[in-house]
Amino acid sequence: MASAENLVRQRLTGLVPSELLDDPEQAASRHAAAVWSCLTEPGDGVAGTLVAALGPRTALSVALEDGTDSVQDPNVVAARRRWLPRLGTVDDAFRGAQRAGVRLLTAEDDEWPNALDDLGPHAPRCLWVRGDLGTLSSRTPAVALVGARAATGYGEHVAMEMAAELAGSGITVVSGGAYGIDGMAHRAAIAAGGRTLAFLAGGVDRAYPAGHADLLARIAAGPGAVAAEVPCGTTPTKWRFLQRNRLIAAAAGATVVVEAGWRSGSLNTAGHAAALGRALGAVPGPVTSAASAGCHRLLREYDARCVTGADDVRELLGLTGAAVSGDDSFTGDRTRVLDALSVRVGRSAEEIARRSGFAPDDAQALLGMLELDGSAHRTADGWRRRPA
Amino acid sequence: MASAENLVRQRLTGLVPSELLDDPEQAASRHAAAVWSCLTEPGDGVAGTLVAALGPRTALSVALEDGTDSVQDPNVVAARRRWLPRLGTVDDAFRGAQRAGVRLLTAEDDEWPNALDDLGPHAPRCLWVRGDLGTLSSRTPAVALVGARAATGYGEHVAMEMAAELAGSGITVVSGGAYGIDGMAHRAAIAAGGRTLAFLAGGVDRAYPAGHADLLARIAAGPGAVAAEVPCGTTPTKWRFLQRNRLIAAAAGATVVVEAGWRSGSLNTAGHAAALGRALGAVPGPVTSAASAGCHRLLREYDARCVTGADDVRELLGLTGAAVSGDDSFTGDRTRVLDALSVRVGRSAEEIARRSGFAPDDAQALLGMLELDGSAHRTADGWRRRPA
Repeated sequence: MASAENLVRQRLTGLVPSELLDDPEQAASRHAAAVWSCLTEPGDGVAGTLVAALGPRTALSVALEDGTDSVQDPNVVAARRRWLPRLGTVDDAFRGAQRAGVRLLTAEDDEWPNALDDLGPHAPRCLWVRGDLGTLSSRTPAVALVGARAATGYGEHVAMEMAAELAGSGITVVSGGAYGIDGMAHRAAIAAGGRTLAFLAGGVDRAYPAGHADLLARIAAGPGAVAAEVPCGTTPTKWRFLQRNRLIAAAAGATVVVEAGWRSGSLNTAGHAAALGRALGAVPGPVTSAASAGCHRLLREYDARCVTGADDVRELLGLTGAAVSGDDSFTGDRTRVLDALSVRVGRSAEEIARRSGFAPDDAQALLGMLELDGSAHRTADGWRRRPA
Repeated sequence: MASAENLVRQRLTGLVPSELLDDPEQAASRHAAAVWSCLTEPGDGVAGTLVAALGPRTALSVALEDGTDSVQDPNVVAARRRWLPRLGTVDDAFRGAQRAGVRLLTAEDDEWPNALDDLGPHAPRCLWVRGDLGTLSSRTPAVALVGARAATGYGEHVAMEMAAELAGSGITVVSGGAYGIDGMAHRAAIAAGGRTLAFLAGGVDRAYPAGHADLLARIAAGPGAVAAEVPCGTTPTKWRFLQRNRLIAAAAGATVVVEAGWRSGSLNTAGHAAALGRALGAVPGPVTSAASAGCHRLLREYDARCVTGADDVRELLGLTGAAVSGDDSFTGDRTRVLDALSVRVGRSAEEIARRSGFAPDDAQALLGMLELDGSAHRTADGWRRRPA
């Protein structure tokens, strides 16, 4: 079917590397994945299961086939009735992507974020990307820094410090492109010369929020990327925001909520991270600040780790060695003898023993050790403590 | 030995209820516990083990006896050499207590905080108390609110709000009488008309810090108490502060660190609470505030619960509906009988019935159930509680 091949080639031109267009199998598979993203809402498990079982191309043939006897799964039969009405949007989606210089990324590509596959049947079939595809790769450690749009100066300050230090040290900062914490995290990552990745709830050809058009363009200018699983021309809806949150949580090795009110949408991202078994952190704030109430809720109810700075985030990502602790029973005895010593007045060993509650021999032995480490010294009128 | 009885009577006059002075056995036992507190540093495990095995009076005879053949335990032989040099301080300790209007509390007293017995051999032998002895009883729920001397306005605000609400609702606020968080917790509890308890590291006859002389006097004026395990005339030392912290942690059902720097002494109290299996909470603050770094450390390293207000503290204490499990009415009855039992002193079932306010048959039945679950056991001289 040469005309079908031509349609695929025409639609994918500019969206995938040109050498791929010369391989009809590769092109058809990528095209099918992209069409699936046009036909389905994010997280459509029926589509995900079908594609996982048959591959995007065969699954799409099944979905589009008119003969009712070839489709027996009642879920698929029902789902076709929500998929097929969207066939008319497919052409516009590809054209919109070409106009906006968008790239198409699918599971076959090297840069595909394999971490998203942890979403199982709810994983996206493809991503529409503006910017550097390498930003998506799960080979680079990534942290999601998210939080409330209505952030305070405190929250924005912490987001900025943390994002700058992490991005500056080679960790990709993932967020949602929103006002408040998200925007500050992206901005600081860019300023630090690091990588940042924004997942949008609508098509990447349109800026949401509109006030972040410049910021999103700067992210896409690199080193960074703006990505969405919905095709160009798609408006963000509440459902799509919630589903977009699962991409942020899945793409990052850890999610840290920097500042969030009691019902902040970023708690949804945190919930996805916890459900996926990703490390979850929350930055505490004053208990008197409503803007931190959601973070405290995560610490209390979701067993989130308390995150106070970039080092804690690296620990969440497993990028540091474990903390070392040591203890010394000598320390307690030492303290008791030191308490009994004076800097100004010399005291006999017997006096020290009485004051510290040790037997004279033991006190003598401890004094000897304190003398060795320089904390105590003998003078003409007895033992004295050395000034700190 | 009438002269020994007279000495005991003379020393205890004013320190214990006068009717006790007419019972030589009772008086001698309390006197011995008080003498032990003069001879030992806080937490002396050899003394604690000896007293637990023989009772304070017999243990003291053993310790004071000159014949070497009667004492064989090498730990005791060694310990006698640190205990005996302090015999000369005993008279002054009793006289100082009488002058300061201090009361003596021992494990035989109704008001004795049984929760301290969880310290095992490191439990204090007695407490020297200014104020209302009832404040000490473990029958009232108690929370330790502790923190840094160098508190910020934020920390003091939170301490004040939390202490006022908790004390106002019948929960005893325990702290260490220091500047900063401790002082604010005591003050707010008093202002709310609630009970507050200050454990001091030195003798209760002297105010430490001196600037809190008025506050400590107000606490003692009630409803509240100032208590120490060291006798009157004892200076606070670093060791005694650290040991005092274990009393705060043990006496309270939960310890909450309100504000603490990275190396604050209140982290030591938190460590004792954790070691004792007490609930541990920490109030978060801005990660940009060094004064909250210790709280965040507790959240990260000690698995402390994030505490944002009085309700969270009640949950830590198990005082909220959600936290209660099992047969409530039995739990309450069980607690009452447990409160009437001592680890160190055997009591008859009749005595337990009287102390717990149950009919003898009911007390007997509850004791049977406590025996079954291992919380209580029968000994030659009656029922005892098993150490936690």
